[in-house]
Amino acid sequence: MVTAALRRLEALTEALVGPVAAAPAGAAPIDLVTAALGSVGAIFDGRHDHSRRRQAIIDATPELQERELIKLATLATTLAAALRDRGIPEPAASLTSQAAMAVFRVAFERWVRDPGEPDLPAIIRASFADLRTLIAGPPAKAHT
Amino acid sequence: MVTAALRRLEALTEALVGPVAAAPAGAAPIDLVTAALGSVGAIFDGRHDHSRRRQAIIDATPELQERELIKLATLATTLAAALRDRGIPEPAASLTSQAAMAVFRVAFERWVRDPGEPDLPAIIRASFADLRTLIAGPPAKAHT
Repeated sequence: MVTAALRRLEALTEALVGPVAAAPAGAAPIDLVTAALGSVGAIFDGRHDHSRRRQAIIDATPELQERELIKLATLATTLAAALRDRGIPEPAASLTSQAAMAVFRVAFERWVRDPGEPDLPAIIRASFADLRTLIAGPPAKAHT
Repeated sequence: MVTAALRRLEALTEALVGPVAAAPAGAAPIDLVTAALGSVGAIFDGRHDHSRRRQAIIDATPELQERELIKLATLATTLAAALRDRGIPEPAASLTSQAAMAVFRVAFERWVRDPGEPDLPAIIRASFADLRTLIAGPPAKAHT
């Protein structure tokens, strides 16, 4: 069980940092994390039923929820290190990677709870676009 | 010790959700979380030395690091609920609150490791502005 969990974390880590290392020189932080999340999202292709069953177990087990939090935090730290390796300075590297993992978390939650056959990479892209709009503020609202 | 930790979490929760509940009608998600983080940041005013000592203990204790992660996740969930109470639908509520806690985390880390007398609310505001720029992509880079 521990070995399976470790293998799983290794696979996620590889999917996350591989595209960052392989990106063209001068790629912007947003391009690097978009590529990273797209690659992680693709891991779950064809695994929706499995992921739904797994999530039901996690939902019922606080200890597993904590382990998931730790895993996500570890992945965020790893992603920030991969960004620094590509010349992105701090705090930009940590800000972008933490925000990216926040997007992944919300997108994964939507995907895993969708009873249909949703497309995780598409939900991730849409969530990033949503976040961009949300933190930019309302588009057509007068500030008084 | 547990009681002190609980009181601390209660104070943080109150600082976080109070401004959300008190914001004017029609406030945008970004305005709500900016007010929430400003209020949380103000809690740490005059507590830099204490926070630095506390962080040194956390840095040396993996179990406390996990507890901090759980606390931040709890605060993010609470903030998302407060946003929904103000009529922000999902997934906007979760996206904004998770991103806000990501910003808080990076800003707090910068603040607590700064040997001077830094201003946490100012670092939080700067970090949000940085994130906006980062996820908007590079300002003057030609895409091919």
